[in-house]
Amino acid sequence: MSLNTFGHLFRVTTWGESHGPALGATVDGCPPGVALDADMLQHWLDRRRPGQNKNMTQRNEPDAVQILSGVYEGQTTGTPIQMMIENTDQRSKDYGDIANTFRPGHADITYHLKYGLRDPRGGGRSSARETAARVAAGGVARAALAALVPGLEIKGYMTAMGEMEIDRSRFDWNAIDGNDFWIPDADAAPEWEAYLQNLRKEHDSVGAIVEVVARGVPAGLGAPVYGKLDTDLAAACMSINAVKGVEIGEGMAAAKLKGSENADEIFMGENGPEFSSNHAGGILGGISTGQDVVVRFAVKPTSSILTPRQSIRTDGTPIEVVTKGRHDPCVGIRAVPVGEAMVACVILDHLLLHRGQVGIGPRGKIG
Amino acid sequence: MSLNTFGHLFRVTTWGESHGPALGATVDGCPPGVALDADMLQHWLDRRRPGQNKNMTQRNEPDAVQILSGVYEGQTTGTPIQMMIENTDQRSKDYGDIANTFRPGHADITYHLKYGLRDPRGGGRSSARETAARVAAGGVARAALAALVPGLEIKGYMTAMGEMEIDRSRFDWNAIDGNDFWIPDADAAPEWEAYLQNLRKEHDSVGAIVEVVARGVPAGLGAPVYGKLDTDLAAACMSINAVKGVEIGEGMAAAKLKGSENADEIFMGENGPEFSSNHAGGILGGISTGQDVVVRFAVKPTSSILTPRQSIRTDGTPIEVVTKGRHDPCVGIRAVPVGEAMVACVILDHLLLHRGQVGIGPRGKIG
Amino acid sequence: MSLNTFGHLFRVTTWGESHGPALGATVDGCPPGVALDADMLQHWLDRRRPGQNKNMTQRNEPDAVQILSGVYEGQTTGTPIQMMIENTDQRSKDYGDIANTFRPGHADITYHLKYGLRDPRGGGRSSARETAARVAAGGVARAALAALVPGLEIKGYMTAMGEMEIDRSRFDWNAIDGNDFWIPDADAAPEWEAYLQNLRKEHDSVGAIVEVVARGVPAGLGAPVYGKLDTDLAAACMSINAVKGVEIGEGMAAAKLKGSENADEIFMGENGPEFSSNHAGGILGGISTGQDVVVRFAVKPTSSILTPRQSIRTDGTPIEVVTKGRHDPCVGIRAVPVGEAMVACVILDHLLLHRGQVGIGPRGKIG
Amino acid sequence: MSLNTFGHLFRVTTWGESHGPALGATVDGCPPGVALDADMLQHWLDRRRPGQNKNMTQRNEPDAVQILSGVYEGQTTGTPIQMMIENTDQRSKDYGDIANTFRPGHADITYHLKYGLRDPRGGGRSSARETAARVAAGGVARAALAALVPGLEIKGYMTAMGEMEIDRSRFDWNAIDGNDFWIPDADAAPEWEAYLQNLRKEHDSVGAIVEVVARGVPAGLGAPVYGKLDTDLAAACMSINAVKGVEIGEGMAAAKLKGSENADEIFMGENGPEFSSNHAGGILGGISTGQDVVVRFAVKPTSSILTPRQSIRTDGTPIEVVTKGRHDPCVGIRAVPVGEAMVACVILDHLLLHRGQVGIGPRGKIG
Repeated sequence: MSLNTFGHLFRVTTWGESHGPALGATVDGCPPGVALDADMLQHWLDRRRPGQNKNMTQRNEPDAVQILSGVYEGQTTGTPIQMMIENTDQRSKDYGDIANTFRPGHADITYHLKYGLRDPRGGGRSSARETAARVAAGGVARAALAALVPGLEIKGYMTAMGEMEIDRSRFDWNAIDGNDFWIPDADAAPEWEAYLQNLRKEHDSVGAIVEVVARGVPAGLGAPVYGKLDTDLAAACMSINAVKGVEIGEGMAAAKLKGSENADEIFMGENGPEFSSNHAGGILGGISTGQDVVVRFAVKPTSSILTPRQSIRTDGTPIEVVTKGRHDPCVGIRAVPVGEAMVACVILDHLLLHRGQVGIGPRGKIG
Repeated sequence: MSLNTFGHLFRVTTWGESHGPALGATVDGCPPGVALDADMLQHWLDRRRPGQNKNMTQRNEPDAVQILSGVYEGQTTGTPIQMMIENTDQRSKDYGDIANTFRPGHADITYHLKYGLRDPRGGGRSSARETAARVAAGGVARAALAALVPGLEIKGYMTAMGEMEIDRSRFDWNAIDGNDFWIPDADAAPEWEAYLQNLRKEHDSVGAIVEVVARGVPAGLGAPVYGKLDTDLAAACMSINAVKGVEIGEGMAAAKLKGSENADEIFMGENGPEFSSNHAGGILGGISTGQDVVVRFAVKPTSSILTPRQSIRTDGTPIEVVTKGRHDPCVGIRAVPVGEAMVACVILDHLLLHRGQVGIGPRGKIG
Repeated sequence: MSLNTFGHLFRVTTWGESHGPALGATVDGCPPGVALDADMLQHWLDRRRPGQNKNMTQRNEPDAVQILSGVYEGQTTGTPIQMMIENTDQRSKDYGDIANTFRPGHADITYHLKYGLRDPRGGGRSSARETAARVAAGGVARAALAALVPGLEIKGYMTAMGEMEIDRSRFDWNAIDGNDFWIPDADAAPEWEAYLQNLRKEHDSVGAIVEVVARGVPAGLGAPVYGKLDTDLAAACMSINAVKGVEIGEGMAAAKLKGSENADEIFMGENGPEFSSNHAGGILGGISTGQDVVVRFAVKPTSSILTPRQSIRTDGTPIEVVTKGRHDPCVGIRAVPVGEAMVACVILDHLLLHRGQVGIGPRGKIG
Repeated sequence: MSLNTFGHLFRVTTWGESHGPALGATVDGCPPGVALDADMLQHWLDRRRPGQNKNMTQRNEPDAVQILSGVYEGQTTGTPIQMMIENTDQRSKDYGDIANTFRPGHADITYHLKYGLRDPRGGGRSSARETAARVAAGGVARAALAALVPGLEIKGYMTAMGEMEIDRSRFDWNAIDGNDFWIPDADAAPEWEAYLQNLRKEHDSVGAIVEVVARGVPAGLGAPVYGKLDTDLAAACMSINAVKGVEIGEGMAAAKLKGSENADEIFMGENGPEFSSNHAGGILGGISTGQDVVVRFAVKPTSSILTPRQSIRTDGTPIEVVTKGRHDPCVGIRAVPVGEAMVACVILDHLLLHRGQVGIGPRGKIG
């Protein structure tokens, strides 16, 4: 993870500001011969796209992605893939009055302190719009994974939003895509919506927890001790705007467990080793076990709210900030496809890294 | 973070196995002219050293560090600093019977699957002994930070261990170094000790939460959007053995907050901007604000316990595993100095990175 | 140097194919507050632009560069700078007949062998058009250098082209920009032109040597022993299409010298140490001395010629290749601004790297 | 190439000074399961070892290498391999008088300027002793290559030394190991020796050219456009002490060739494509063709000579420098095994890199 690039072999560089002419991602190191076109990427971008329902910002961006390089006659060539998304619904004037104001909870003040200047329009580089580029890159990763590991599936969903929390006993994998909150419980969605709309009316916002599961990840991925699979997943998720915590498997709750409860017991199954449980979240010693890889992250509440907050201007004078513009009452919702994209990129990267050092597939045999 | 190296400019490479002849760390990119000798490093290593009290493993390792390069007449020269710690108390026979057994909750099975072979003695590379090398590297980082940012202080402590939890209203910064658990409450230590010794008698172990605070970190450190300060802190902490979750500021609890509660309000203080609170943990948009940087991580319970657990051998046959040897009932205790070391390395690295791109100190003025 | 990115802190990623919709460069890590606009970059791109005179390919590309990110109100913001150049004069049909043919001396066969497929139009990614993106990045580096090291000058010129060679006794720094060959001798240009036009009529091409000098480089730049200044310059120049050799100072001729001839003697001048000569090319032990940094590289003759050459098709059958299309009779000419750009990027990168590790300017005092 | 580490996946970090307690190399990313022990490495180190004959420095270092990690029961485990060489024949007093003197042609002055201090004993980090660590790393690379690409051979030899030059018509691959100069012509060795001994008596030294050939390199290695195989080879060779020029195939001589002479024609052989010649040195577009990879580099004459040279002290006062101590009259001789080691590391690294991105072996079929 280095400034605006992440990944060891599958390397993603994103660029662009919220209200500049365009933003995008450059993917370098993609395997050649992967079937890819703009429509495949658009499918994933549409999931993150703003303005789709009343639980999201009403900024209306088509987020139409163009592939400018690295694909020839529908296949990746192994050279850099440039994906560009033009910004179309820029209302910079919405931000005119905040050019010299630091919005509480935003990166305005730290960008100013670090760089001495910033593009204030819509948060510039620190805007959540940057995550569109991640989703495009994740689409490339998914296409490559589909070719290399058939059956691998990556799915994100919300597990909590403020006071709302999913009931794990009602978990329904198939319900996730069927509601506006990406929650695994179709019946719960109306209650979540009522809760969120009420907060919006109160000019407030709320945080959320997103869980991403990767099923079918081969055992053996991860590069101890500083390129561990969980290390890179933690970095990938923590780099997403507004994320304040990342967990693998039991996560923070592991602190309350005893050793006799936590370690997953091992049995020999028909196709290799199996585990009695998955407290580890599919990763031991930084290497995938073959179980579901389970990553969870917390997204803080949107800082842009209509409720007045105390702050200062660039000149140090006090100001009461009320952030107008068009904002998500819970950015956690749109963080779901972003989390999926980051997980997809990390897993593909580690697949290539493992193939580079060790060769294809797990090297050790059991049984 | 790349295999066994981490850092952008202050780069740390660790090497060595639990029961090999030695282990160590190579630090590359340290500023020249920093006062450094082996005693300064030994001070930090002694804090992590096993066998110091009955709450730790009884393996007796002096962990004496030698500096083999990069220091001349008591000063760093800017060239690689090689630090070696010889292993002296290796009882490999303790591990003889586990060469072909996968201990539940350990990296035995994943190292086997990934590499096809492994050094089984004491966990080999996946042993917590590797963290001694991190602490040595952290000692170099602290020495450089002392020269570059006088007054900067980095301190770790435990906030929870199984059912034990600190009472934040009794938080005493000065109590931390005075008890075996690095907890900020001298009066609570006896209760923690009784709890842990009871678990040990029950042949069990327990998880913990460690918090590390860095005070006096200049504003402006962090390299958005993939080299954010919190991104690198998350990776650094997640790479520590047994860590399953990492939080910045509010962490996972941010999911429950409203925007009107979470965003820290800004005021103009005598020496620059001040904040009404520190939900952000000192980082906004991936860049330090000048407030305390607050990192928290969960350590899972030691998997090596005397309670029998089901597992398999390399040949797939079942076996009941009882892990003898000398193990920490709560590895979280010794993770405290390790967490401090990782935070020190990351902050120094970002200080150099910021100086490289932007120059010395925050560039933007306020007021 | 990693796939399509180079640089440690000033990192350049290029993307795009010869006949795709566009190509470009992403510059990450540029210092903030540098004055920059598209016109400043266009100045340098125009020097490399094809179709300017009869000694170049007649492909007519305006090479108009757009800045899509990282610049706000005429200043760099410290975030990624995306520069895009749209391809306008694509005559892909010129290449239709070579999709299944390997042109001798070209990367057609190796791209095919490596990736299994390739974009055959104009050489795809291996086309010299990729160097336009380098020149754009070099323009950013020059702008940053102008701000950080006033007076630093980087200039390239040809020293040889086939049988032509410059007469060092007639070296005229000011003549370089005044002729089509970038040679430091105005009177020699007509002879070079006659020589080249004759080769073109013979359906042939020819190699060249380019020398790039950087004046005013501060002492102390370079990161021994694998990030030496000469190491990175060698890599940067060898990565340019068609380059087969790189020299620093005396270069290959150092093999003929005695120690008593080669080592530059040192004297104390008014402003610090001075040297009696510059056999070292301004670099000792991988670190700049403060003298002129002198880099030289050889460019092989264009492989695309009208003279028939034996080769094979993808199916292994033989074919006589006559490369039509519009090609430079000597690609060395247009390699001059490319070499300058690479040297500019490397020097800025090392300036930032030095500032990161050591601070601003040389640290050691003499006298 | 980053400070003291090189390589993408097979990463080598060297550390240590000429007169410190030890020096060494850490190899990270080596494939697991490679047969390796200290004797295998010693074989290569013995070729570079000083004091073997009168054409070398008389410093007597056994250069005995110890493996401290990463190897278990005779096989690499995939974890970092630490190799340490203790310095035994340090005569630091030889250097006592030069602590405040800058030897012409040496890195003394630039290390001083950059870092503000330096270890003056024997050149400290800039000593050619550092190359022993490279040879150890090269030994690991050779062991891994032997396992992955049976039949691959890497051999270096001198092609010139001052006025001496090999006669290519008498080239004898088998003669190389049979003489003190590693030249491919047994009959020429006595003349080279007489020439060198005469120079030594005259208190002088001389430069040399070393050529390294890698036979049996699979087609398809190299990562355009900034991780090209020739780019990385150029960097690897230029990073060797005293190297001033690097060539691939025709090298600088390509500037004199016409396109009709230079491009290697392609034919279909029994086992795939063959070439009529190898002007390209086995690399086209930065990717190996399957032909011999041919790298050549020039080593400048040893700067440490008994002939007096003008210089200055740290305080700026003039001094006449006569470098006593024990020095090679031609460091080019011992650069031969170093060049081989660097080429071995780069080729293995690119083999792993290719395997990571594309899979095993060339992907494209011909015929």
